[in-house]
Amino acid sequence: MQPNGILTITTDFGTMDGYVGTMKGVVLGIAPKATIVDITHDIAPQNIQQAAFMVHTYHSYFPTGTVHLIVVDPGVGSRRRSIALRTPQALFVGPDNGVFTYIWRDAAERWGTDTCTVVELTNSDFWLPDVSSTFHGRDIFAPAAAHILAGVPMEQLGQRLDSLTEAELEQPSIGRRGGLQGRIIHIDYFGNCITNIMLKDVHTAGFGESFILEVIGQRIPGLMRTYADGAVGSLMVILGSSGRLEIAVRNGNAARNLGAGIGDTVRVIENT
Amino acid sequence: MQPNGILTITTDFGTMDGYVGTMKGVVLGIAPKATIVDITHDIAPQNIQQAAFMVHTYHSYFPTGTVHLIVVDPGVGSRRRSIALRTPQALFVGPDNGVFTYIWRDAAERWGTDTCTVVELTNSDFWLPDVSSTFHGRDIFAPAAAHILAGVPMEQLGQRLDSLTEAELEQPSIGRRGGLQGRIIHIDYFGNCITNIMLKDVHTAGFGESFILEVIGQRIPGLMRTYADGAVGSLMVILGSSGRLEIAVRNGNAARNLGAGIGDTVRVIENT
Amino acid sequence: MQPNGILTITTDFGTMDGYVGTMKGVVLGIAPKATIVDITHDIAPQNIQQAAFMVHTYHSYFPTGTVHLIVVDPGVGSRRRSIALRTPQALFVGPDNGVFTYIWRDAAERWGTDTCTVVELTNSDFWLPDVSSTFHGRDIFAPAAAHILAGVPMEQLGQRLDSLTEAELEQPSIGRRGGLQGRIIHIDYFGNCITNIMLKDVHTAGFGESFILEVIGQRIPGLMRTYADGAVGSLMVILGSSGRLEIAVRNGNAARNLGAGIGDTVRVIENT
Repeated sequence: MQPNGILTITTDFGTMDGYVGTMKGVVLGIAPKATIVDITHDIAPQNIQQAAFMVHTYHSYFPTGTVHLIVVDPGVGSRRRSIALRTPQALFVGPDNGVFTYIWRDAAERWGTDTCTVVELTNSDFWLPDVSSTFHGRDIFAPAAAHILAGVPMEQLGQRLDSLTEAELEQPSIGRRGGLQGRIIHIDYFGNCITNIMLKDVHTAGFGESFILEVIGQRIPGLMRTYADGAVGSLMVILGSSGRLEIAVRNGNAARNLGAGIGDTVRVIENT
Repeated sequence: MQPNGILTITTDFGTMDGYVGTMKGVVLGIAPKATIVDITHDIAPQNIQQAAFMVHTYHSYFPTGTVHLIVVDPGVGSRRRSIALRTPQALFVGPDNGVFTYIWRDAAERWGTDTCTVVELTNSDFWLPDVSSTFHGRDIFAPAAAHILAGVPMEQLGQRLDSLTEAELEQPSIGRRGGLQGRIIHIDYFGNCITNIMLKDVHTAGFGESFILEVIGQRIPGLMRTYADGAVGSLMVILGSSGRLEIAVRNGNAARNLGAGIGDTVRVIENT
Repeated sequence: MQPNGILTITTDFGTMDGYVGTMKGVVLGIAPKATIVDITHDIAPQNIQQAAFMVHTYHSYFPTGTVHLIVVDPGVGSRRRSIALRTPQALFVGPDNGVFTYIWRDAAERWGTDTCTVVELTNSDFWLPDVSSTFHGRDIFAPAAAHILAGVPMEQLGQRLDSLTEAELEQPSIGRRGGLQGRIIHIDYFGNCITNIMLKDVHTAGFGESFILEVIGQRIPGLMRTYADGAVGSLMVILGSSGRLEIAVRNGNAARNLGAGIGDTVRVIENT
């Protein structure tokens, strides 16, 4: 699989400081024809789980051979490794702190990890000449990603690794009180509460598409097909665009209605 | 008129979730050479009037043949139509909920609507294979816009329509107490209050360029040529960059000074 | 030095209004192949010093021949000049209000100002046909930058000037109580407090790399190599990615911890 010339960037840098723009300058100095796409720079500061969820959600909508650069890096300057990962679908560059957990697990399930290559970015020929201790996004990750995009074989960027670091990302499970228990892992701009429960998890646990989702003492019937199917102002459970159960309010803000936050428990139970 | 390879995107999605980045991935999968330009993703959630104003303001600054994609879509998943519109100047893709009202009226006035083509996006060959009920921006609008950009004739994307849905967007009118009455339709980042009164409306109503604008009990003399003509801290009326009357404060925030909001009434009266 | 096809944009326009998108439309109408990179649009409104710091920090990471467009322009519509500047490294377009002060001083020190060209943008052939009095970013600066990017020699855009306006940007100095005194000039998204003291200033003043930084009554030992070297929650002094001393907290927000703001005094003293 060859890089296709597209580079996406996801960070927790915000957009007020020019940090992301600086990284793009580095990329364009190495790969002047790169097509650069911002995914988001509003990952909650140093929130590895949110970054892992995000890259898992968007990457499959890009054409095969896209390079995805993720810089959410609480350990910058410490001993955590910098890595690049190639799956049969895409290339990834970032810190080895768990941001690629979902990508790695998916690749293992779909193609086997022996179809993937992981490299530690140890070859300083592909870094900027001066490496600061505080901004590896600019000094190591951006140039490495740009060299990969420009066609340098990943293996030249450093030594092969057998695997990468997986974050402990909680999976939905059968709760003690019965039912399928999960959590809210993301609240989007509209206040929709996205859970870690996929529809296939619901089916595997033996539920149909008519169930109750319990959250913060509320019991919400599922599954609505679309936002417009719900009454204005009432809570509903939707199959979100990333394939996960979401709690939504038509033309409203579910997180605010519920007083819900990231980490809150949700539970799928029988609709009796 | 042929598409020129440029695609603009305007949404109410914000930038924290990667929703817009995902749409760009879909576009680049279909039209890898597209030049994509973000206009804004901070339209007030589901505010069709603001989106209609915005596209009307910026689109004429793009070269002929630009494709403008607008996703402000409270009715996603319901029966509202998805459409594409071609005028002699540009191509537009989005929901048929009124976001193209000003564009359509302008085209009718300048060229006649028989120079325009409206198509309902009914041909699923030009959608993503799996269409969610919650994210038509990704699944229908982005691929349709990309196919148009890549040169697919609009007529292939679905059945012709005779017209599109116009939102009820209030026009300035002669008020009961005399004077030309309008409203604040947008407050920009700097606190400038943009009204729905164009300078030509002022002239048509028989006023010169020396008038009084009444707003929230204040009487502000118009028309100043530039921000720098006003005293620091005092309210003034400016001809804004979109050709509309704006209330501004030099180096200050007019909306905050006035306590003004979107929808507030303004009135042009004689300067006696 | 020839333009390389890349244009960066830095403004205080925010991203909610489509003002920046409109400027990009103007650029692409003149230079359809331009690669446009946003640096930031969140410069504090009309804060010339912050803009000057920003462009100084990022521009050197872009390849030679990049055009940098800066629109932070409290004097729009008044008599302040519009200029373009060419150094041996890059091209700059913006208002002549001090935003290029650091660039100019650096060029003077490195190459001499006789290697640079400054032009006032007086030739209206390279503006939009209709120039508003409120949005020169769109009507003058964007088209001028695009023409330069497209290869028009800078000298055709207007009359040569001998120099440009330098803002009074405070430099660190030896304080009355001894020590090297400077100020916080920027607080970034993470709460890091960036000072106007470069490491070379510290050396010139006779200090080593082990010193104390005083700020708001706190005495912080310097210099840590990396964020990860500090204890979680404790204040530390770092050499930031722009070569300036920064006050940081590992996985925390230094500005909030200190109650610090832009303009606060800092002082490097002996570590005794």
